[in-house]
Amino acid sequence: MAVQTVASTSNPTVDLGPAAALSCRECGHRVPLGPVFACEECFGPLEIAYDFSAYGTEELRARIEAGPANIWRYAPLLPVPADVADKPNINPGWTKLVKADNLARELGVTGGLYVKDDSGNPTHSFKDRVVAQALEAARAFGFTTLSCSSTGNLAGAVGAAAARAGFRSCVFIPHDLEQGKVVMAAVYGGELVGIEGNYDDVNRFCSELIGDPAGEGWGFVNVNLRPYYAEGSKTLAYEICEQLGWRLPDQIVVPIASGSQLTKIDKGLQELIKLGLVEDRPYKIFGAQAEGCSPVSVAFKEGHDVVRPQKPNTIAKSLAIGNPADGPYVLDIARRTGGAVEDVTDEQVVDAIKLLARTEGIFAETAGGVTVGVTRKLIENGVLDPTLTTVVLNTGDGLKTLDAVAGTGLTATIRPSLESFREAGLV
Amino acid sequence: MAVQTVASTSNPTVDLGPAAALSCRECGHRVPLGPVFACEECFGPLEIAYDFSAYGTEELRARIEAGPANIWRYAPLLPVPADVADKPNINPGWTKLVKADNLARELGVTGGLYVKDDSGNPTHSFKDRVVAQALEAARAFGFTTLSCSSTGNLAGAVGAAAARAGFRSCVFIPHDLEQGKVVMAAVYGGELVGIEGNYDDVNRFCSELIGDPAGEGWGFVNVNLRPYYAEGSKTLAYEICEQLGWRLPDQIVVPIASGSQLTKIDKGLQELIKLGLVEDRPYKIFGAQAEGCSPVSVAFKEGHDVVRPQKPNTIAKSLAIGNPADGPYVLDIARRTGGAVEDVTDEQVVDAIKLLARTEGIFAETAGGVTVGVTRKLIENGVLDPTLTTVVLNTGDGLKTLDAVAGTGLTATIRPSLESFREAGLV
Repeated sequence: MAVQTVASTSNPTVDLGPAAALSCRECGHRVPLGPVFACEECFGPLEIAYDFSAYGTEELRARIEAGPANIWRYAPLLPVPADVADKPNINPGWTKLVKADNLARELGVTGGLYVKDDSGNPTHSFKDRVVAQALEAARAFGFTTLSCSSTGNLAGAVGAAAARAGFRSCVFIPHDLEQGKVVMAAVYGGELVGIEGNYDDVNRFCSELIGDPAGEGWGFVNVNLRPYYAEGSKTLAYEICEQLGWRLPDQIVVPIASGSQLTKIDKGLQELIKLGLVEDRPYKIFGAQAEGCSPVSVAFKEGHDVVRPQKPNTIAKSLAIGNPADGPYVLDIARRTGGAVEDVTDEQVVDAIKLLARTEGIFAETAGGVTVGVTRKLIENGVLDPTLTTVVLNTGDGLKTLDAVAGTGLTATIRPSLESFREAGLV
Repeated sequence: MAVQTVASTSNPTVDLGPAAALSCRECGHRVPLGPVFACEECFGPLEIAYDFSAYGTEELRARIEAGPANIWRYAPLLPVPADVADKPNINPGWTKLVKADNLARELGVTGGLYVKDDSGNPTHSFKDRVVAQALEAARAFGFTTLSCSSTGNLAGAVGAAAARAGFRSCVFIPHDLEQGKVVMAAVYGGELVGIEGNYDDVNRFCSELIGDPAGEGWGFVNVNLRPYYAEGSKTLAYEICEQLGWRLPDQIVVPIASGSQLTKIDKGLQELIKLGLVEDRPYKIFGAQAEGCSPVSVAFKEGHDVVRPQKPNTIAKSLAIGNPADGPYVLDIARRTGGAVEDVTDEQVVDAIKLLARTEGIFAETAGGVTVGVTRKLIENGVLDPTLTTVVLNTGDGLKTLDAVAGTGLTATIRPSLESFREAGLV
């Protein structure tokens, strides 16, 4: 697919498929595709502007359905070159959409309940989707080092993707991260640099490095490549609809960290409607947070348009962003679609992890406990309609947050004899 | 697909698709399908005998290719009812076959090197394949409890599958298993019983329970359901060939625990040849063990037909079976196909885990370190031909054996300043 020329904003050396330019979310100012993330006019966030005119609806649907069993089936709708599937990449996506009938019974959902289980990605979190996009942008811009600041999932996703694609990687983390998380990130063999400071210090240092000659040739997936990176979350929306038979769900429950994922899922659904791939009818998007880091939920309930930062204190560490950049957009979307934002306690998160595991055999990360717990709470409060088709996201694997369920253990201990077995009341 | 009637050995109440009877691997004695695993005549192991006459080759290929993206695409070749994909199951399989060009360069493989990455299964090991088969047999025989003896991966696979399918589960493990493994098995909410004793004691107890009225209605996936369970490994062979474009690989490197997986992969390849789905041409199967538990490798190198048991002492715990039941069959297959059996030290296992991670972004369990390490050793020794197409199995996820690479860590620690960054020599 050729890049369409967009007057005065095209960058003829960059082939990122249907991506035509970067456009400011606030003021609409357009700039050529490049490794920039903030508007030079108003400092608003830059987003990808597309030209989707290359295909008719049914041609596009046929192309997608004939594509590979990963996110590259949607290459015509992503900022990637048409031949992306032939390049070395860890090829995330096309994860299972599990019809969760047992969970539905427990929660009283009659309209069809589904879990979109992103623990099936290569490094077992949805981060593989966004990193895969950033990697293609890094390739297009001639970067040779892939980098990020991280406190966990992202570090592994960047390390794995860089290794496979032949990039150098250099990941920055707080120096006192838990040893398990360090191992998961270090095993891919890239540079893993501990910063003496907290996550904010790590981020500040990365911004400094981008502006310095030392950072030349470096693509920071969640900083200077952020507009491309963020688009990866759209694929969750595409997959859910295609897996439902090219149908919009009535309700989706999405976890909120920075809020980017939720806004991009909405963007993906809107694109499918505009492209005619799904019927245009209402859907509701619900945001889920942990009580210990619930700035968006608090703002939603208080009717505010702005989000007051919080100091996170929750076991759902992959969602623990106290000052979420996309918080105001999340509030807009929840209100516009008739959804809501809700939060649950850490105890409810653990209960929900166990509930999902014992009903559907899916072992979720704490973020999955947050979405399932919030779904339950929203049903109990009469906010989520149990007679409608509902999709709940699980964005990561329970093996990554074992500590959260560390209290789970043996139900009995017996001697190796039938007598002891009978005494334990297990028959 | 209807079960074909086989005189005097059919069980008309059991619909397990093309499975026609159980047949003794040693003496050929046939008995009706049922929850039995040893021949009543000679105590040899029972295997499934099939009737594959229902489909012509091209009809079969078309059915498979139109099937779901999991093992049930091969339902016409498995001991499961034709409508298996509609039943609640965790639907493993159709995992990635990764073209490993970076690893190939490091190892000097020029004929095409692939990693079959079974860490992508629902509970992140190949055990989901075998448990899914056992579950369908348990359903067919009217069992209500799914059980097993386990030291790790299998416990989680049984817990997850039972939860999803609405079975009670009761898993027996040594009482002093590491806490992490206990949590991974316990989270699915079934009974998890610690036995005061070692793994042998656990197994002896399970055999006792099967013969007792207390065990009525219990399906032990790796004991009384073993003939069905074991067939799940055939799907690895099917997927590899289909993913290669319906082509046999020249060489496959398979880990050896009990040896069952390797024998079933050979069985699967033979079936594809007989059914005309792949061209009939030679292939070589190589077995991989850890030096600390290498009874089959030792027997192979010494030219023996029998396997002398060992007391395991290796970090590759998922392969640590000192007295492998299928060892003699493995020796047969390695010799018949022109393959070999080799072993590597624990240090080589760790090196191989890191090698695979830094070249392909795949984080393997210790068993994957064993196969990659053995592949390297076989190439260095001139046993494995680097000019031929080679497939290496990774049967589990590195997150399950984090301890093996616990020494991996930060490459540098710096202050959050460019000066400190430059001093560390990271530019």
